[in-house]
Amino acid sequence: MEYKVFEIEDYRNIVKLLGDSDRVLYGEEISEDYSRDELGSVRVMPKVVVKAISTEEVSNIMRYAYENNIPVTPRGAGTGLVGAAVPIYGGIVMDVSGMNKILELDEENLTLTVEPGVLLMELSKYVEQFDLFYPPDPGEKTATIGGNISTNAGGMRAVKYGVTRDYVRGLEVVLPNGEIMNIGGKVVKNSSGYDLKDLIVGSEGTLVVITKAILKLIPLPKKAISLLIPFNSLENAIETVPKIIKSKSAPTAVEFMQRAAIEAAEEFLKKPFPDNTSDAYLLLTFDGNSKEEIERAYEGVANICLDSGALDVFISDTEERQEAIWSARGAFLEAIKALTTEMDEVDVVVPRNKVAEFVMFTHTLEEKLNVRIKSFGHAGDGNLHIYILRDDLSEDMWKKKLSEAMEIMYDKANKLNGQVSGEHGIGYAKKRYLFNALSEEMIAIMRGIKLAFDPKNILNPGKIAQ
Amino acid sequence: MEYKVFEIEDYRNIVKLLGDSDRVLYGEEISEDYSRDELGSVRVMPKVVVKAISTEEVSNIMRYAYENNIPVTPRGAGTGLVGAAVPIYGGIVMDVSGMNKILELDEENLTLTVEPGVLLMELSKYVEQFDLFYPPDPGEKTATIGGNISTNAGGMRAVKYGVTRDYVRGLEVVLPNGEIMNIGGKVVKNSSGYDLKDLIVGSEGTLVVITKAILKLIPLPKKAISLLIPFNSLENAIETVPKIIKSKSAPTAVEFMQRAAIEAAEEFLKKPFPDNTSDAYLLLTFDGNSKEEIERAYEGVANICLDSGALDVFISDTEERQEAIWSARGAFLEAIKALTTEMDEVDVVVPRNKVAEFVMFTHTLEEKLNVRIKSFGHAGDGNLHIYILRDDLSEDMWKKKLSEAMEIMYDKANKLNGQVSGEHGIGYAKKRYLFNALSEEMIAIMRGIKLAFDPKNILNPGKIAQ
Repeated sequence: MEYKVFEIEDYRNIVKLLGDSDRVLYGEEISEDYSRDELGSVRVMPKVVVKAISTEEVSNIMRYAYENNIPVTPRGAGTGLVGAAVPIYGGIVMDVSGMNKILELDEENLTLTVEPGVLLMELSKYVEQFDLFYPPDPGEKTATIGGNISTNAGGMRAVKYGVTRDYVRGLEVVLPNGEIMNIGGKVVKNSSGYDLKDLIVGSEGTLVVITKAILKLIPLPKKAISLLIPFNSLENAIETVPKIIKSKSAPTAVEFMQRAAIEAAEEFLKKPFPDNTSDAYLLLTFDGNSKEEIERAYEGVANICLDSGALDVFISDTEERQEAIWSARGAFLEAIKALTTEMDEVDVVVPRNKVAEFVMFTHTLEEKLNVRIKSFGHAGDGNLHIYILRDDLSEDMWKKKLSEAMEIMYDKANKLNGQVSGEHGIGYAKKRYLFNALSEEMIAIMRGIKLAFDPKNILNPGKIAQ
Repeated sequence: MEYKVFEIEDYRNIVKLLGDSDRVLYGEEISEDYSRDELGSVRVMPKVVVKAISTEEVSNIMRYAYENNIPVTPRGAGTGLVGAAVPIYGGIVMDVSGMNKILELDEENLTLTVEPGVLLMELSKYVEQFDLFYPPDPGEKTATIGGNISTNAGGMRAVKYGVTRDYVRGLEVVLPNGEIMNIGGKVVKNSSGYDLKDLIVGSEGTLVVITKAILKLIPLPKKAISLLIPFNSLENAIETVPKIIKSKSAPTAVEFMQRAAIEAAEEFLKKPFPDNTSDAYLLLTFDGNSKEEIERAYEGVANICLDSGALDVFISDTEERQEAIWSARGAFLEAIKALTTEMDEVDVVVPRNKVAEFVMFTHTLEEKLNVRIKSFGHAGDGNLHIYILRDDLSEDMWKKKLSEAMEIMYDKANKLNGQVSGEHGIGYAKKRYLFNALSEEMIAIMRGIKLAFDPKNILNPGKIAQ
């Protein structure tokens, strides 16, 4: 891909377009943070960072970039894990984290209209005041909603409530050529031509820049109860999950965790976890509108677990106790990161009855390759988060072992009819695994779709299928 | 578009490919049914009909058509309303209604794998034996699941459970060039490249031929209760709906209906409706796992309705009574059709708090244009079904009035931030209204997407954005 060499003149033109030089960073003003995301396994500095605060600004910058053939990489909070927000070809980073206003709560249509930079934790707190609920709940609450839409983030509650895609009703977006486009709206159904809305959800900033989103809300469940269920072995714990699904009990979340992750989180948060005496745990939540309704749902599940070898069932029905458990669960990524020098991750999703097989497979791999591999994840929806730890490996050895571990794990996922990414996306880091997993025709179609939106290939180039 | 002139030689080659001449219809063997769909407003006879019974056959036929530049139009039960299954450019109709096997129920992953020709009524009956539930519930139960996927059918329960799209996890499809492609699978989450699955859902047979679908099931709610609520006026009835939504009570379905539609259904089914003394009704369903849970949900709603001028609240808690109401509701389309000589429909969706305004608007239009306009629909999700009746109008006058009525209604929907189609799709009949509603850029992107799948434009040409 051949792009214009970015010159000081371009910087000046961009400042002119914004009319505000404080929001255009150039050269040494640019923090190293803009070269990377949360995992930082790939790093490239942009030539310029534009902190846009309106759709019009995004549109003006895109038009300029399009006319001048300059690559643009959209960026939110930078909490991604696959390098999707890294400006591989330099050029402009479009930082939309300052577009962070909640624009409208519509209680008659149960929608919330937001700018893309609103943080997930602010969004959910805001709607809960009105007894409303935005269910998607990834561990990373400081991510922006724009980022969540771009990766189709899932999170803990996907088992019952689905993923981000299911809660996006409408989008305002800026096309690579600067045109502003409105898709969907407050409508509940839509069969009016090809589904551009869902195509954009999960497209990791490669098709459009999202400047506004209309989200679906649902009534806030009045009560939630969590069950922490210790098992003697992880295999035993995870193999109980298909039985729970089969029992038709509809839990909100089903997570699995091992003592190692729990201890890391205790250390990281300096807070004790309610129990760390067992090797493995399932953590379940049930929500509903009355205590009886929830009790009916979880009693059966508790019995299934006990019949399958659970050592106990700890019920957390106060907000405080649930907070203690779930804040630990939310801190797993950071806690594991703190255990080592560097790490990379695998975010595969497999059919729910294959989770145990996959996790056991990673344990064998850990021994075989002699690297530490830690995992936790969404047993209820088959999405695993597996971390390969560098520890004190040399650069060469790390790259070699990491690549080998990745190759083997993605291959295994593929054999189990799984997919490369459950919710973190492909970005830059997972491209080769996507290419391995999909047929040539599928890759060709994805490239054709990219071309339909972005004929000059200036928006976040080098990502996903490219 | 220039296609090969279909010759007897092509027919012979196709018979050879299938090895079974009984399943290839040619010339006078082809029933007139294959030229049209349920509404029949557009009719073109195909040159040949292929009754495929396997993915391999579909693939072989597509490859032949691709190599020889022959248009192919996929067809299920032919219950569509917008001409999507009509072979506008002649060529081959690929009838997949014989691919009608239920292939696998996976209780551990809560999925059902089916061929595209399985009828909706068979599918839902099948899974209910296992206490499982496939929620999408359009009025037309004799439609195929392939057709439902192709239009992203919604139906009555979309308020609580969403639409067909939400229940498709994986697809096996045949590309226009004959390649077989697998998308998604039994996985619950997926962020692995562009969302081809959702792009194909709702694409009305223009991108691929669907040969297999993996559907998501949920636990069957143990109980359902319907409320039939009479009002003095339709406006009053519909204006109550945003208050119900705002009350966060989560009904399964919220339909509105008028006496005229009820009387037509009584006449059509030769069965009395429980009540026909009022001008307008809301029909609500609530489902759940216990009587108390459902009662808690509907009591508040019943009070809201009474406070808003409802004349009464009839509760139907037996299957028999519910069947009497819902079978009438399901027969509305056929019943209205039987009232007149010919009709056409508008399937717009508007934000839920604009339904009353839109329906009142059609009443004014009825008087202004002096044509009969009948409506019913999904008040709970904003999707309206509005029928313009020809009665004894001359061909010229009918075309003129119909076109005028359509133009005005779609324009109104657009002004209310609605969309052209809520669930019936665009097909051939609604193209001009889609072009009016979407920006040039959106149409251009849709055409680019079509090209990415079908560079020779042989699959169902002349539909949606073409």
